Amino acid sequence: MSAFRIGVLVAICAALCAAIVLPAARPAPQAPASLANDPRLIEDLVYANRILYQQDVLDGFGHVSVRSDKDPSHFLMSRSMAPALVTSNDIMEYGSDGEPLDARGRNSYVERYIHAAIYRVRPDVKAIVHSHSPDIIPYSVTGVTLRPVYHVTAFLRLGAPVFDSHDGFGDTDMLIRDNKLGDGLAKVLGNSGVALIRGHGFVAVANSTPIVVYRAIYTQLNARVQGEGMKLGTIKVLTPGEAEKAQAILEATVGRPWELWKTQVGKIQ
Amino acid sequence: MSAFRIGVLVAICAALCAAIVLPAARPAPQAPASLANDPRLIEDLVYANRILYQQDVLDGFGHVSVRSDKDPSHFLMSRSMAPALVTSNDIMEYGSDGEPLDARGRNSYVERYIHAAIYRVRPDVKAIVHSHSPDIIPYSVTGVTLRPVYHVTAFLRLGAPVFDSHDGFGDTDMLIRDNKLGDGLAKVLGNSGVALIRGHGFVAVANSTPIVVYRAIYTQLNARVQGEGMKLGTIKVLTPGEAEKAQAILEATVGRPWELWKTQVGKIQ
Amino acid sequence: MSAFRIGVLVAICAALCAAIVLPAARPAPQAPASLANDPRLIEDLVYANRILYQQDVLDGFGHVSVRSDKDPSHFLMSRSMAPALVTSNDIMEYGSDGEPLDARGRNSYVERYIHAAIYRVRPDVKAIVHSHSPDIIPYSVTGVTLRPVYHVTAFLRLGAPVFDSHDGFGDTDMLIRDNKLGDGLAKVLGNSGVALIRGHGFVAVANSTPIVVYRAIYTQLNARVQGEGMKLGTIKVLTPGEAEKAQAILEATVGRPWELWKTQVGKIQ
Amino acid sequence: MSAFRIGVLVAICAALCAAIVLPAARPAPQAPASLANDPRLIEDLVYANRILYQQDVLDGFGHVSVRSDKDPSHFLMSRSMAPALVTSNDIMEYGSDGEPLDARGRNSYVERYIHAAIYRVRPDVKAIVHSHSPDIIPYSVTGVTLRPVYHVTAFLRLGAPVFDSHDGFGDTDMLIRDNKLGDGLAKVLGNSGVALIRGHGFVAVANSTPIVVYRAIYTQLNARVQGEGMKLGTIKVLTPGEAEKAQAILEATVGRPWELWKTQVGKIQ
Repeated sequence: MSAFRIGVLVAICAALCAAIVLPAARPAPQAPASLANDPRLIEDLVYANRILYQQDVLDGFGHVSVRSDKDPSHFLMSRSMAPALVTSNDIMEYGSDGEPLDARGRNSYVERYIHAAIYRVRPDVKAIVHSHSPDIIPYSVTGVTLRPVYHVTAFLRLGAPVFDSHDGFGDTDMLIRDNKLGDGLAKVLGNSGVALIRGHGFVAVANSTPIVVYRAIYTQLNARVQGEGMKLGTIKVLTPGEAEKAQAILEATVGRPWELWKTQVGKIQ
Repeated sequence: MSAFRIGVLVAICAALCAAIVLPAARPAPQAPASLANDPRLIEDLVYANRILYQQDVLDGFGHVSVRSDKDPSHFLMSRSMAPALVTSNDIMEYGSDGEPLDARGRNSYVERYIHAAIYRVRPDVKAIVHSHSPDIIPYSVTGVTLRPVYHVTAFLRLGAPVFDSHDGFGDTDMLIRDNKLGDGLAKVLGNSGVALIRGHGFVAVANSTPIVVYRAIYTQLNARVQGEGMKLGTIKVLTPGEAEKAQAILEATVGRPWELWKTQVGKIQ
Repeated sequence: MSAFRIGVLVAICAALCAAIVLPAARPAPQAPASLANDPRLIEDLVYANRILYQQDVLDGFGHVSVRSDKDPSHFLMSRSMAPALVTSNDIMEYGSDGEPLDARGRNSYVERYIHAAIYRVRPDVKAIVHSHSPDIIPYSVTGVTLRPVYHVTAFLRLGAPVFDSHDGFGDTDMLIRDNKLGDGLAKVLGNSGVALIRGHGFVAVANSTPIVVYRAIYTQLNARVQGEGMKLGTIKVLTPGEAEKAQAILEATVGRPWELWKTQVGKIQ
Repeated sequence: MSAFRIGVLVAICAALCAAIVLPAARPAPQAPASLANDPRLIEDLVYANRILYQQDVLDGFGHVSVRSDKDPSHFLMSRSMAPALVTSNDIMEYGSDGEPLDARGRNSYVERYIHAAIYRVRPDVKAIVHSHSPDIIPYSVTGVTLRPVYHVTAFLRLGAPVFDSHDGFGDTDMLIRDNKLGDGLAKVLGNSGVALIRGHGFVAVANSTPIVVYRAIYTQLNARVQGEGMKLGTIKVLTPGEAEKAQAILEATVGRPWELWKTQVGKIQ
């Protein structure tokens, strides 16, 4: 390579350096006081938001939460905003009743009670996703059960139960806007990994953030596959024995897609 | 390559440099003579064009308009061009009859009468979208009504009415190309938020730009969800009570997806 | 803006200039001797290749051609390569028999006889697209006719005829690899704008490049819409009168989507 | 911000500059000790991983292998990681039993036995793809056979056989995790180019990397086309004679899409 070319590259580098150093010479924004003992809990929560948006599970609506590792009766979730834009500065802490502990004027998601209610009755659950996935809706409004049609969705086990707000609550705006509705949903969820919400969406739960993200993404995929399969004929679903074994092995390897999804999101500012 | 050529290229580079450095040093370009009292009305209209294109509701065809805030009998819309490329300089003003007030040689959309006719009879309407969405067409040509299958499309209420140009007008080129056809469409629309146009597309109306964009995007989503649902079985749609309540709450939170969509479009030159 | 910041920008510009000017100081590649009187004929042909690839009508296979404006018994088409990568340097000239006039070692598409045969019997045709579109295949193998279900596909008129190589040619490799097969296809095409090729794809023809690209893209869209519509119920298709009028007006406005598609492709190296 | 911090940033910039300028000035990095005689064998294997990810055939799961050109009883495959991220440094060598020859602490794919078993009984096979494609699953769980519906998938010949781990192995975790299961799959595959794995995915085999990638991509496309076709009516599939001839010609032209797919992936670091 010619000396002239090298000279041009050096000039470009000098300019790049100026562009990098100068903004840093200004004071950095204040880092938030940490809401978690393990900083990766917050980092993974932010990634979960971004991944689920990129994977079309969340759009302008929907949310992700994790149980606090400082106080297990609390949970952490972004303030009310689009998941695509969440950063660590947006994470807030909520009590077991779903109310924010230090709002400082920030709005909370109306449906935080989905998360609060499930954390209250499921000590095994450490992370929750709520999505309005269009692919799921048909299984929430037709009486057709969403069942595991292939091994990667074995966690659906015997099928996803459906919570219908009309049963017990009549005509509502269909949002899970208080603890009573949240309790109703948690009761239908039972010990399952996924429950559908009639004419609304679904909730996925798990004992870690990578696994709950995996379950949310693959629940949506299962809906598409089952729909196509049912148009061809009767689907031979996983047996209970197959589902139990397949779920264990696939969730043991969740690191592989999780790392890929994080790489696809890239660095978060 | 000749020295003259190289000289020309150097001159081009110098011009490029000037073009990059000078704007950073000088005041922002002059805003065009304003067609609105509130500049955000125009800005949101331009964003609406870009958002609807990015969200696959508009392609090379289709258009968005807003009622003028200077003279409510007038409306504002881009000149005839692809929505993906609209800027504030392309916005024109139209009278209640759908004719441009200051064309200056610029072409208008042939179907501006869709907008003119609806603004004439719906004083509550402040923004209108017309789309050729392929997902909608099946519901305009089969007699199957597009109904709200999930809460985010509650604004569809009892279902979207269908205007068929063949009824009353016989064989036409199927465009709403004059006020008579526009009046026919407005009559079928009635007090609804959405009406379908047989073998053509749909129109969505609302009292603000963010809400009309939301309705256009989610009308298209509802079509996909309803189609998939009908292949599974009978859909339990929203009750009238649920639709009324769900529409109110979701449209109160339209700011969240609206800000996300604007962020996805980014800065418009 | 600070003087320092401006200085940094100037440095970046200087580097950019060097990067632009230096390569130009080397001799430019030889421009090809022109195969057309109007250079835009070649330019639009290259754009057609890129647009159809970007719009998912062509993938690694398929091709576009235009009738020569120097000698109307000849036609112009890229050498055998993926349409996504075609540049003006790849365009070759073919005689009425489909054979290249100046191959210079470059391979031709095996199915150039599709183009040759149609140009021979359709003096109105100035441009042809051949695509393997997956969306079209179902209408070529089930006996269900692809009909215009909405106004933008009015050019499908009474429906697209289907050429089946098995009729008259028995077991072949299903490619239109000689003039006999090409004549068979042209005969089935008749005066239509589009014909399907059983278990293979389709061909679209028109009297200009923008219109043939428009027809190819919208034929594919019509397939999707018709499929979804047929799952809902019986489709009320365009009447012959509507189709005739709608086709005329939409093809008069093809400039709008054509300019958008070119903008989406951007500058071609 | 402190002076020390700024100093650190300047040092980082200087390092960045060195990192940008120096590689341009120095010789290319040392290629790893080669696992193959022909370096293009490794290069194509890496491209196959990236292409299949980009073409949505592989996601976080799935894998590609090639038979070694040094020892035909061995095969080469990436260590256990997402195909999207594979580089030449990740390729490992496996013996005929599926065990790694020089693991050096790197994990292997659990399902390497798919590849090992097929290479053992199919001397003609030089490359294998295993995918969890959602589009394929319906044909593995409904008893509907995936058949060639258009010429580009002629390699499906009389249809793809289905291996069901439940036959002969009962309730398993549905992964091909040992040679016994691998042998079962290879037996069902027989002399075919593609076999489906019930509720799991599919495997494609071929005598070269470009052809196996082509088969994997088009098997998935065939699934979509066949599904849509079956919703319209009865599909007229390729006759055995057509399939034999079409397969030969299309695989002779695989270079065209292969070069396009490599171009779409771009340069791999």
